[in-house]
Amino acid sequence: MDKVPLLLTPGPLTTSASVKAAMLRDWGSRDPGFIAMNAGVLERLCAIAGGQGAHVAVPVQGSGTFAVEAMIGTLLPRRNAKLLVLVNGAYGHRLVKIAQVLGRPVDFMEWTEDEPVSPSQLAERLSRDMSITHVAVVHCETTSGVLNPVEDIAKIVQAQRRLLFVDAMSSFGALPLEAGKVPFLALAASSNKCLEGVPGLGFVIADQTALAAAAGNAHSLALDLHGQWQGFAANGQWRFTPPTHVVAALAQALDEFDAEGGVAGRGQRYRDNLGVLLAGMRGLGFRTLLADDVQAPIIVTFRMPADPAFDFQAFYQAMARRGFLIYPGKLTVADSFRMGCIGRLDLSHMKAAILAVQETMKEMGVASGAP
Amino acid sequence: MDKVPLLLTPGPLTTSASVKAAMLRDWGSRDPGFIAMNAGVLERLCAIAGGQGAHVAVPVQGSGTFAVEAMIGTLLPRRNAKLLVLVNGAYGHRLVKIAQVLGRPVDFMEWTEDEPVSPSQLAERLSRDMSITHVAVVHCETTSGVLNPVEDIAKIVQAQRRLLFVDAMSSFGALPLEAGKVPFLALAASSNKCLEGVPGLGFVIADQTALAAAAGNAHSLALDLHGQWQGFAANGQWRFTPPTHVVAALAQALDEFDAEGGVAGRGQRYRDNLGVLLAGMRGLGFRTLLADDVQAPIIVTFRMPADPAFDFQAFYQAMARRGFLIYPGKLTVADSFRMGCIGRLDLSHMKAAILAVQETMKEMGVASGAP
Repeated sequence: MDKVPLLLTPGPLTTSASVKAAMLRDWGSRDPGFIAMNAGVLERLCAIAGGQGAHVAVPVQGSGTFAVEAMIGTLLPRRNAKLLVLVNGAYGHRLVKIAQVLGRPVDFMEWTEDEPVSPSQLAERLSRDMSITHVAVVHCETTSGVLNPVEDIAKIVQAQRRLLFVDAMSSFGALPLEAGKVPFLALAASSNKCLEGVPGLGFVIADQTALAAAAGNAHSLALDLHGQWQGFAANGQWRFTPPTHVVAALAQALDEFDAEGGVAGRGQRYRDNLGVLLAGMRGLGFRTLLADDVQAPIIVTFRMPADPAFDFQAFYQAMARRGFLIYPGKLTVADSFRMGCIGRLDLSHMKAAILAVQETMKEMGVASGAP
Repeated sequence: MDKVPLLLTPGPLTTSASVKAAMLRDWGSRDPGFIAMNAGVLERLCAIAGGQGAHVAVPVQGSGTFAVEAMIGTLLPRRNAKLLVLVNGAYGHRLVKIAQVLGRPVDFMEWTEDEPVSPSQLAERLSRDMSITHVAVVHCETTSGVLNPVEDIAKIVQAQRRLLFVDAMSSFGALPLEAGKVPFLALAASSNKCLEGVPGLGFVIADQTALAAAAGNAHSLALDLHGQWQGFAANGQWRFTPPTHVVAALAQALDEFDAEGGVAGRGQRYRDNLGVLLAGMRGLGFRTLLADDVQAPIIVTFRMPADPAFDFQAFYQAMARRGFLIYPGKLTVADSFRMGCIGRLDLSHMKAAILAVQETMKEMGVASGAP
């Protein structure tokens, strides 16, 4: 058997041995021990977003998309509301799709996958279209890895008296996103990205007043964030069976997150990883899709090499044999592949990954990664 | 620290050490190794329901309720359809609630919590109400532990040319429920009940023709069973991040299920456990809610003892200290508590549980469990 590979992907990610070991115990979901652990997790998630007091963290079983749908379905009113989604990749399009499936009025503005969404264009649109009540944006769009200027966007949305949803899936825990500086109605994220837990759990940090007003608005029983919140308020218990092992892993992951220095420490490690990845790959001739000033320290899109000896499937498999799973591209505009720098990875892993790329190119007879 | 207790609950349950150990590896969700493991799991789930060929297994991230909602939302048409739910407990009521939240026409027939639903009353209702197109029933209603006559119901529904949804959450894998003998449109179950995996995953075994015809019917993107199925058909991958560790645990749990002799072997162990539980508790004076002939070998409801020295919270805590988590009652009609006999428990565990009850009663000064 090949050795277990490291995951250079946007998630699920490589987690620490101790996070996985936290799953070696079965918890009773209605037992006081589990209830206390779960409450601690929710409190800490809320604190990471600077949301104590005004906001509340509500977890949702499933993937991050489940949390995003619960957020939109619960907090975007059915009547007298219209959502404007700022799109520059697949996750923006997914927000549009969710609103469409739910039958909620939605429109979108679109930018190319290699540029951030534009706050000034948003400002202009909001001032001339008063039917828009809510705006949604993806913080880091992992389609390309581009970082959107969420703070500027939030300030414009607030100034124009609209409300903001943030899909912070791949940034939460690594890039600052605090309610005090980035006014938001709600943000959605998940257990298995920069918090370095295992997948199985999404969550929403929501304005408590808005959530309280959202009773009966959701399109779903399972994805009703208000009902979920009320369940915890009643007795600290999940309404429906929680993924107990995933919650235990997240509790351990949050301990390790704190030990690393929270958002600042985690973000620094990822920025360091990114530096090694960019320098190493560029040294081998590869070119990134994005300019460095809009590249988030999460995942990097590389343009496909022009050398006819380069074949992505063979490259993927050779990298996998060397212990690294990379990620296919998701661009609509150009052939590409992606390599992530998040999860339980440090400089030594990133250097080893670069070495593996170099060896693989040699093996394939690829002279340069240049597109 | 107290020792990790065994879970005498309807789930999450005690799982084997080897099932939990299967979570000690991180999988890339788009890697061929994971895709192959996942495909194997789905094929085996379908086979357990005798559904090869005509049916297909579609997993849903989240709890069993997520799978139930996905089943109803995707397969109950929005127009020209009406669901009749057979209710004798909380999970029947939940089916009604799901249909109501989704805005689908729904009606229900109700029986008391201590009796099975009646096939003959259903037959009578169906023959005089032609507006009903679909029927839903809970196989084992864990509110009380009562077993509903799903085979008789299925035959009546088929004879009257309607379609059947089965909530087989707490019975799947322990009680026979085969498509050949119990004609169903779809059934929903989960990873963490009698299959003895960990929680985080529900699934639906659905008639393939009906599923193919259900494109665009769902109320939700995340809970669209048709979309989920099409995703697997396209490339074997989950549309949205799967709980990879939960899937790996289920793959291991299915190996152990096969090794035990499948439904027959698993069901026999649970029936043996039930025998020890009933005899032991009755020996201590406790009385069950249900008559033995309608008691499923899943979970038993005991009437609360009349002895004024008996206090349920104190009883719960004393049992927890002895290594057993029991379960509160959910009856609307009588004070009660519940003890399960499913999960990785055998006769020695059940005997130890009875001994713990005996010791606890002595400690509390309770002379008899008689209600």
